Amino acid sequence: MTTIKDPIHGYVKLDDMARDLADTQEMQRLRWIKQLGLANLVYPGANHTRFEHSLGAYHLSGLLARHLELDEDDATDIRAAALLHDVGHGPLSHVTEKVLSGFLREEHENVSDRLKRGELGDALADYGLKPHRIQRLIRGETPLGQMVSGEVDVDRMDYLTRDAHYTGVAYGVIDYQRLMETMTMRDGHIALEEGGVHAAESLLVSRLLMYPTVYFHHVSRIAQKMLDVGVRVMVEEGADPRKIRDMDDTELVAAMISSGGYPGEIIGRIRSRHLFKRAVYVGRDRLESPGMIDRGREGRIAEEIAEVAGIEPLYVLVDKPELPRIAEGNMAIIGEDGEKKPLREVSPLVTIMESAHFAAWRLGVYTTEENRERVKKAAMRHLKVRRNPVQHTFEDI
Amino acid sequence: MTTIKDPIHGYVKLDDMARDLADTQEMQRLRWIKQLGLANLVYPGANHTRFEHSLGAYHLSGLLARHLELDEDDATDIRAAALLHDVGHGPLSHVTEKVLSGFLREEHENVSDRLKRGELGDALADYGLKPHRIQRLIRGETPLGQMVSGEVDVDRMDYLTRDAHYTGVAYGVIDYQRLMETMTMRDGHIALEEGGVHAAESLLVSRLLMYPTVYFHHVSRIAQKMLDVGVRVMVEEGADPRKIRDMDDTELVAAMISSGGYPGEIIGRIRSRHLFKRAVYVGRDRLESPGMIDRGREGRIAEEIAEVAGIEPLYVLVDKPELPRIAEGNMAIIGEDGEKKPLREVSPLVTIMESAHFAAWRLGVYTTEENRERVKKAAMRHLKVRRNPVQHTFEDI
Amino acid sequence: MTTIKDPIHGYVKLDDMARDLADTQEMQRLRWIKQLGLANLVYPGANHTRFEHSLGAYHLSGLLARHLELDEDDATDIRAAALLHDVGHGPLSHVTEKVLSGFLREEHENVSDRLKRGELGDALADYGLKPHRIQRLIRGETPLGQMVSGEVDVDRMDYLTRDAHYTGVAYGVIDYQRLMETMTMRDGHIALEEGGVHAAESLLVSRLLMYPTVYFHHVSRIAQKMLDVGVRVMVEEGADPRKIRDMDDTELVAAMISSGGYPGEIIGRIRSRHLFKRAVYVGRDRLESPGMIDRGREGRIAEEIAEVAGIEPLYVLVDKPELPRIAEGNMAIIGEDGEKKPLREVSPLVTIMESAHFAAWRLGVYTTEENRERVKKAAMRHLKVRRNPVQHTFEDI
Amino acid sequence: MTTIKDPIHGYVKLDDMARDLADTQEMQRLRWIKQLGLANLVYPGANHTRFEHSLGAYHLSGLLARHLELDEDDATDIRAAALLHDVGHGPLSHVTEKVLSGFLREEHENVSDRLKRGELGDALADYGLKPHRIQRLIRGETPLGQMVSGEVDVDRMDYLTRDAHYTGVAYGVIDYQRLMETMTMRDGHIALEEGGVHAAESLLVSRLLMYPTVYFHHVSRIAQKMLDVGVRVMVEEGADPRKIRDMDDTELVAAMISSGGYPGEIIGRIRSRHLFKRAVYVGRDRLESPGMIDRGREGRIAEEIAEVAGIEPLYVLVDKPELPRIAEGNMAIIGEDGEKKPLREVSPLVTIMESAHFAAWRLGVYTTEENRERVKKAAMRHLKVRRNPVQHTFEDI
Repeated sequence: MTTIKDPIHGYVKLDDMARDLADTQEMQRLRWIKQLGLANLVYPGANHTRFEHSLGAYHLSGLLARHLELDEDDATDIRAAALLHDVGHGPLSHVTEKVLSGFLREEHENVSDRLKRGELGDALADYGLKPHRIQRLIRGETPLGQMVSGEVDVDRMDYLTRDAHYTGVAYGVIDYQRLMETMTMRDGHIALEEGGVHAAESLLVSRLLMYPTVYFHHVSRIAQKMLDVGVRVMVEEGADPRKIRDMDDTELVAAMISSGGYPGEIIGRIRSRHLFKRAVYVGRDRLESPGMIDRGREGRIAEEIAEVAGIEPLYVLVDKPELPRIAEGNMAIIGEDGEKKPLREVSPLVTIMESAHFAAWRLGVYTTEENRERVKKAAMRHLKVRRNPVQHTFEDI
Repeated sequence: MTTIKDPIHGYVKLDDMARDLADTQEMQRLRWIKQLGLANLVYPGANHTRFEHSLGAYHLSGLLARHLELDEDDATDIRAAALLHDVGHGPLSHVTEKVLSGFLREEHENVSDRLKRGELGDALADYGLKPHRIQRLIRGETPLGQMVSGEVDVDRMDYLTRDAHYTGVAYGVIDYQRLMETMTMRDGHIALEEGGVHAAESLLVSRLLMYPTVYFHHVSRIAQKMLDVGVRVMVEEGADPRKIRDMDDTELVAAMISSGGYPGEIIGRIRSRHLFKRAVYVGRDRLESPGMIDRGREGRIAEEIAEVAGIEPLYVLVDKPELPRIAEGNMAIIGEDGEKKPLREVSPLVTIMESAHFAAWRLGVYTTEENRERVKKAAMRHLKVRRNPVQHTFEDI
Repeated sequence: MTTIKDPIHGYVKLDDMARDLADTQEMQRLRWIKQLGLANLVYPGANHTRFEHSLGAYHLSGLLARHLELDEDDATDIRAAALLHDVGHGPLSHVTEKVLSGFLREEHENVSDRLKRGELGDALADYGLKPHRIQRLIRGETPLGQMVSGEVDVDRMDYLTRDAHYTGVAYGVIDYQRLMETMTMRDGHIALEEGGVHAAESLLVSRLLMYPTVYFHHVSRIAQKMLDVGVRVMVEEGADPRKIRDMDDTELVAAMISSGGYPGEIIGRIRSRHLFKRAVYVGRDRLESPGMIDRGREGRIAEEIAEVAGIEPLYVLVDKPELPRIAEGNMAIIGEDGEKKPLREVSPLVTIMESAHFAAWRLGVYTTEENRERVKKAAMRHLKVRRNPVQHTFEDI
Repeated sequence: MTTIKDPIHGYVKLDDMARDLADTQEMQRLRWIKQLGLANLVYPGANHTRFEHSLGAYHLSGLLARHLELDEDDATDIRAAALLHDVGHGPLSHVTEKVLSGFLREEHENVSDRLKRGELGDALADYGLKPHRIQRLIRGETPLGQMVSGEVDVDRMDYLTRDAHYTGVAYGVIDYQRLMETMTMRDGHIALEEGGVHAAESLLVSRLLMYPTVYFHHVSRIAQKMLDVGVRVMVEEGADPRKIRDMDDTELVAAMISSGGYPGEIIGRIRSRHLFKRAVYVGRDRLESPGMIDRGREGRIAEEIAEVAGIEPLYVLVDKPELPRIAEGNMAIIGEDGEKKPLREVSPLVTIMESAHFAAWRLGVYTTEENRERVKKAAMRHLKVRRNPVQHTFEDI
């Protein structure tokens, strides 16, 4: 048993399998990838890494597997999947995800390549673990995969708690012990006993509040968007997106510096925190025709605004955050009478999640400090931004 | 300056006024009154007192007064009101409130008596503080009183954080620093800058989740209800409700022991944790005609059930928790454009508070272990409890 | 499994045995006995009880037994002993211990009576647990008993952490997880691997610093001494010390109130925090002949001073705190070479413990505010207190 | 006022001066320099930076200046010095300090260059702050400088607490609030009231225990030593040490990668955590003639061992940690009688610090896994390491 001190869980114990997986180059790389990308520009303590988060998810998955009394094989697979679930992340976590998936046509959960080759492929083979099975668990495609990638999963339990610890933002404090205590298997699926409903609500609300406060804080959105376009330019100028995906944070920064040009300028601005500023930052209720904006590509819209404003295209950035993809509230709750209901029927709070996420959504147009006013005027006109909120019918949305 | 170590706020500094107020018999009494009444029967750590909570509220009120740049007189009044806001509590905090207010026709916020007489009256006079003004602040009747008794007040900020610390329930962790940072005066009233909306949401959700988990946990509801009826009997047998109101926890327990009879049995059961059990425990959606129950008095309904079940009246207890009285969401939010809006227009989460509190409401019928089945049958019939949820139109409610 | 929320350990799980033991009247009584006696007069948050501490010690003993891979019988005995180790405490924990043990000639670790009779005796019999064995474990008389009552035991691990949480004093934060991880069995005795030495040092230093800061804080010493004499008078006036020993805090307070006279005055002063004050408070280096004082009984010395000062005897109290009985540093440390050494040979810090405890020792003479000066003069003369430190040779000590 | 969320202090408020200083390139650079160098290889959470530590020290210095009622000019200087005290650090904090100071003949506290030029020089000039004065405060050369660089200073208060938060090691939890509350000015120097002695002891013991557990943990010592030699080689091969000193962590890693050769191999090993192993790791009491080793240079001794073992010189590393330079215990304590004494006379614990630091000292010889046994044999002979402890007289030391 190898024991690792973790500020969240106290001590994380790795069995031989976990230790050998963690020792591979592919996993060690996660030591040098920040969990929250560039959020440290806003929250100076947010320097924690995918590596410790992976250890934390592994730790929780082991506790949960024991509580659910999974058989040994399933438990091993789940623990491996939890440990490896982020091995596919590009540098700076989500920051590079969008641009790289655009070029590579795949997402970070698609880790089959990494699971089959290299030191990690060997280590998995040593323990008779099937890459295909692990991959499916990581993607939450099988019922047990809900433990790793579901509505109330060990990934979320760990990252909310961990992000709270490092940013200092209290909202992430959740009762993961109670969640795990009240989880149960029903018809081969993960379900929650009624006694865990408030803990689940708490997790979902925590996540909801962490979005505008941390994950979508406008300063880190701006830095992310800048980096996103910087990397895009680098690829368009010939860099190999596959190589970028395999970098860690240090390597990406070094690559951008030595690339010079626009990418070099961008990384220089980020490192000295001379960021672009918000020219426009509005909710959907300020857009006359939000559908029009939904349909346009960010880059295209940015070019149009730049043209109207009469400035160089790459100095106007348009940021349309994606709304959370999956509707919450589907998790099965087992009532005291033994009947199953979806979480949203039991919890009024959960029904409001979608519209609350919606309310926090902001369209951002960013540019340099000196061009701010010009871009603002151009963008307000071009995007048909209203001074006062507009009431949209649900169809507009 | 007197400095007191507090596990929540680190050190609380009392100026001369606060020290002299805190040193009075009326305030020292709060050292021996538990903040959460009998909740320690469920959460063994919940032994904290009204005294430390009062110090905490005082501490926060001082920080808030400084942030709001109140003039010296207002600041002094507010700090005194925060320190004294719970001086009117009867023994075991809320547990005895209902029964005593029934007999005394007043509530614990009515503290004018205590503010005018005794050591406390003298101490207030020494510092030229007006009992009438303090009383109005404590009741939240003036605009500044919202700091002590409002939607987002120092009372709530302190007790949520404190109750979380002592029970170990995570939900109470809130960002009171941010709340205070974003509070502002607008047109003579307390308002919140937009940047504090998520912190306010977090406070309101915390409170919402603390209700079913801690404040209305069924075990402490049962113990409370038992004590409520025990005290009622004691008064009906001749005890002076005014004297009971002035007791602390120790004195009440001692009085019930030496009273013997039903009150003596009840306190014996509580102290050895041989509590009544739930015969019925259902939400409104299981009641065929909730309105009928809303209109009846608890004691009357209990007697009727006892008669049907054929057991002694005082061994059936009916518990209809009161729903939070005030609609949340009225606090003024100051947008970036300087416009004022009520919190509920800005926050989808807040709109759902009322129905969420509603969903957590339970009607309880409690009795001794051995009578459980008989009482259950009788109560189900008498109260027209349905096996399956009934859909009520809003008028029923 | 019954699960109880604890602010220190998260959730404590009780198996059937533990639940049945905890449900007895003897254990439920500990819910109403404060862990730190009257320390809440200094640290308003220090209202935690022997009950939750007992649950905590039980929880840690289970983890430790599993780590040490004890056989099932030993593990069960240890867990029972940890749960029950404080069942013999009189009201207000250590406060009444001295006076009661004087009258009863026994200490709180002597719990054989309580283990053989009543609900607790029955519950132990139900699970085939031998009172005699449990008693020996509680007193630390067998090698395994060191887990419950030794130099680095679950009792200390829990109370230091718990006292820190409730008082807010940081010194009690220790790494009990590491301590348990590095504990091992060697030749039938508990030993510590070298990797745990710093954690053990930290525990011992924590305890050292908690003494003057919390356990021996002069205000709670004064209140304790007052109560000690109040109870002594009550017994001398006819109260049965055996009955007092069986009371909880509430009952003792009620008994003192209804006793009236000196005990009634004392408890009134404590409850309104009108305490005696320090007339003299000095370390050994200020005493001309400390040996003389060591030999005298506190009550006798107090009477002599009162006579000199010309005031009533019971209004002068003399307080000579006992120094920790057992020399620290005997725990066996297993070096990397497998050799055993006592902790004190490995740790310079530990060698200093005794003299550090010594340096914190204070002789106190307490009296009412108005008699302070007179008593001070009388005591300084009578006890031969020097203005400047006196160097004592070790023989004096 | 700019407000920054910090997980340790809640919110840190920057006035205009502090904000403008923090916004300079020189200070932003500290965002990318890890506080604990390579300790994240042992404690995966230890990714915090010099930047947040600088904000923390600034925050505490402001509180302390207010408590001490410094005049406005002194307070401003102290706050600037606290904010800037680490601006001279090279990449990876202490890791590169030794090698760079060897080449540059200066230490990181020598920041006069950085304070006079560039954005930082301009910002200081804007606020009329004198580089010379700031530099002297940072080096603790003036009485007030003890607040920033002394025995009980804001630097230590912040880093112990912060390192504990991020590593999860409990020992760093100290009571900095009490320390600051009990600090006072006496004869123009910082002193401590007697009531703060235990808090000071706690800080010094915390630091003592953090050394072997975190700062001198053998795994991070190995990684540090490897990097130290890697950088040394890079300089010997022509890299400019002055340029290296100005890099941040990212730039140093990138430089080592692109340097290739030995430095490239070393950084590759560190990044994939394929570290050298301990061939020898012993305290002074295992050395026959410690003085001989004290006198030799690490590099020279390593070459000798490598020669004996017959392997390439750079694959044997010798590590002789420096003992803390300054004797502790000189801080002035103000007794209740108003007299001044050095801390070590009041505190037995402090007298033991030096020998306790001594006891934790280890001589390390590191090499690759495959050469471990050969190097062990060679080193044991060459360094005259004994199997059993040798008693040294104090002169040997």
